[in-house]
Amino acid sequence: MTKVVLMSGDEDISDLVQPILRAAPELDVVMHGEQSASDAEIAVCWNPPVGALASLPKLRLVHSIAAGVDGILSDCAFPSVPLCRVVDPQLARGMSEFVTWGVLHYHRQLDRVLANQPIERWFRHEQGDSSECAVGIMGLGEIGSRVAMDLQRFGFAVRGWARKPRELSGVTTFAGPQEFRHFIQGTDILVCLLPLTHETRWILNATTFEYLRPGAKLIHVGRGEHLVPADLIAALTSGKIGGAIVDVFPNEPLPPKDHMWRAPNLIVTPHMASVASWDTIGTQVAANARRLIRGEPLQNVVDVTLCY
Amino acid sequence: MTKVVLMSGDEDISDLVQPILRAAPELDVVMHGEQSASDAEIAVCWNPPVGALASLPKLRLVHSIAAGVDGILSDCAFPSVPLCRVVDPQLARGMSEFVTWGVLHYHRQLDRVLANQPIERWFRHEQGDSSECAVGIMGLGEIGSRVAMDLQRFGFAVRGWARKPRELSGVTTFAGPQEFRHFIQGTDILVCLLPLTHETRWILNATTFEYLRPGAKLIHVGRGEHLVPADLIAALTSGKIGGAIVDVFPNEPLPPKDHMWRAPNLIVTPHMASVASWDTIGTQVAANARRLIRGEPLQNVVDVTLCY
Ligand SMILES: NC(=O)c1ccc[n+]([C@@H]2O[C@H](COP(=O)([O-])OP(=O)(O)OC[C@H]3O[C@@H](n4cnc5c(N)ncnc54)[C@H](OP(=O)(O)O)[C@@H]3O)[C@@H](O)[C@H]2O)c1
Ligand SMILES: NC(=O)c1ccc[n+]([C@@H]2O[C@H](COP(=O)([O-])OP(=O)(O)OC[C@H]3O[C@@H](n4cnc5c(N)ncnc54)[C@H](OP(=O)(O)O)[C@@H]3O)[C@@H](O)[C@H]2O)c1
Repeated sequence: MTKVVLMSGDEDISDLVQPILRAAPELDVVMHGEQSASDAEIAVCWNPPVGALASLPKLRLVHSIAAGVDGILSDCAFPSVPLCRVVDPQLARGMSEFVTWGVLHYHRQLDRVLANQPIERWFRHEQGDSSECAVGIMGLGEIGSRVAMDLQRFGFAVRGWARKPRELSGVTTFAGPQEFRHFIQGTDILVCLLPLTHETRWILNATTFEYLRPGAKLIHVGRGEHLVPADLIAALTSGKIGGAIVDVFPNEPLPPKDHMWRAPNLIVTPHMASVASWDTIGTQVAANARRLIRGEPLQNVVDVTLCY
Repeated sequence: MTKVVLMSGDEDISDLVQPILRAAPELDVVMHGEQSASDAEIAVCWNPPVGALASLPKLRLVHSIAAGVDGILSDCAFPSVPLCRVVDPQLARGMSEFVTWGVLHYHRQLDRVLANQPIERWFRHEQGDSSECAVGIMGLGEIGSRVAMDLQRFGFAVRGWARKPRELSGVTTFAGPQEFRHFIQGTDILVCLLPLTHETRWILNATTFEYLRPGAKLIHVGRGEHLVPADLIAALTSGKIGGAIVDVFPNEPLPPKDHMWRAPNLIVTPHMASVASWDTIGTQVAANARRLIRGEPLQNVVDVTLCY
């Protein structure tokens, strides 16, 4: 019986046991910390404790419960086994819902309208044309490309940035560090949907903000360590950035009294932009477990050298 | 030279003079109140003063600057001339942006998330599936049908209600007073995109709210007199309605100290959901003026007996 261990340093992921077993009853699923976990061959993880993976001598596969794998690869002792992630159209749709909400919030100036209500101020802003609002998406992967297509269908002028040149119908694309500045400079609403890697860490910093159009908006739904919080707060305070929605933080939950809670024109959301359902995660983990057992090619394998 | 008079009881619509003249320089465009206005053959209106239209002996056409004509037909002395309205894909798109923002706001519970920020509360609500969220659209006309299609493409379970039976791909439709209750009962987020007529006046009242699912939401972007404000405030206070966005009011601007400004879980927006641009309005008015002059059939004629 192949043993699967569920590992999470911070969140309770025990809800995943049943969905995995429903999809593959032949597996033996245990929680990290249980004695019997030490001979697990598959680890299913969200931010596993550092060193925990290296302590599993029979490990043959690590599976993220999410799209991102940064919380797994931050462990320097990551063993040389394949690493898989979740790819789910529902996850991408949920992200598209969240980002579309944020883009419309800024495009239609609902941030200012909502601020007028407590002071009983009736003021109608000019209604901009979505085709004149440039939304720039950092990261055109499984999720970013779906978000880009949805916004483009809504009429926004969508531009996107990835590592390699990409073609997406109706989207102006940019690639690599050499085109980064040009990409940022034409953007009114910047959306971060990058994975966290050595190259993308702290990419949302004062220099990047300086390139943006004055009063541009930020919707950050990547990972906490993409963003230098002090640089964002400074840009919001100076008005260089006119508003931001930040969903991800280096420490989650965002601690009480953190400056981000009260920065001007900043909306804090609780890492809620999108999650896959336990059922979907369970089904994908079970399917990859069976492929591993049968010696078939795994799906949604991450390039560990690139960290995504 | 055919004379056109611009009439508005409350808003300044003089920005419309140039767009009309650009599209049809042969017209003579004057403002209501000017002496020479009395022999105008065409009146272009937004809430004209009562009796003003009847005082134009040469009047041959009344043109609304908007989709709605209720502010024109509320004048009992409306003369027996054709009445035209604006039909504009950009107007419908703007409405779709606003309603989509509102639907996503409630579907993803951003109302509660935003309320958590001042108290520094990190709380992640469960992420619902849009296919399980029933959005009910009252009115499936030029604007409502576009909004319905956009929301349906986003994955919502869209239902719609009109006077006559209508077919809209992917949308469950209901017709007439006999199917109203059934329509309302299955709705999580109710959107009012009706014209204001004798039949629809005060349709958003305690009885309608009673049929809704507990905690349902309302997005009201029709006209002020569709809604009984006291009934909405009571439903919000009791929790029968979990949240509402109201964009239109019997008196606009909504007066200071009006109870609506501070009702629980109510978002007040300043009749901003969507407007056509002056250029579009000017072009459509000019085109219909030319048709009138040449004796050709007019476009976007309203059925005055139905009031829409
Ligand atoms: N807030 C939330 O609730 C939430 C939920 C889900 C996901 N996320 C975040 O979203 C991220 C993206 O997910 P995904 O599934 O779309 O990832 P993905 O499929 O791996 O795509 C990553 C994209 O980022 C681009 N990229 C990577 N490194 C880059 C670099 N150095 N410079 C420029 N572009 C670079 C890639 O470029 P190429 O196309 O050239 O390879 C690719 O387009 C996740 O890693 C996670 O951080 C957040
Ligand atoms: N807040 C804003 O900024 C804003 C901006 C623009 C418009 N609006 C509002 O939106 C309204 C709709 O515009 P539109 O261009 O879509 O109007 P429209 O093309 O005239 O369509 C009206 C729709 O309402 C339905 N309807 C009318 N009376 C009804 C009744 N008694 N019972 C059931 N359904 C009824 C019609 O049914 P049938 O299909 O059976 O005829 C039709 O589907 C305008 O009148 C205005 O009130 C608001």
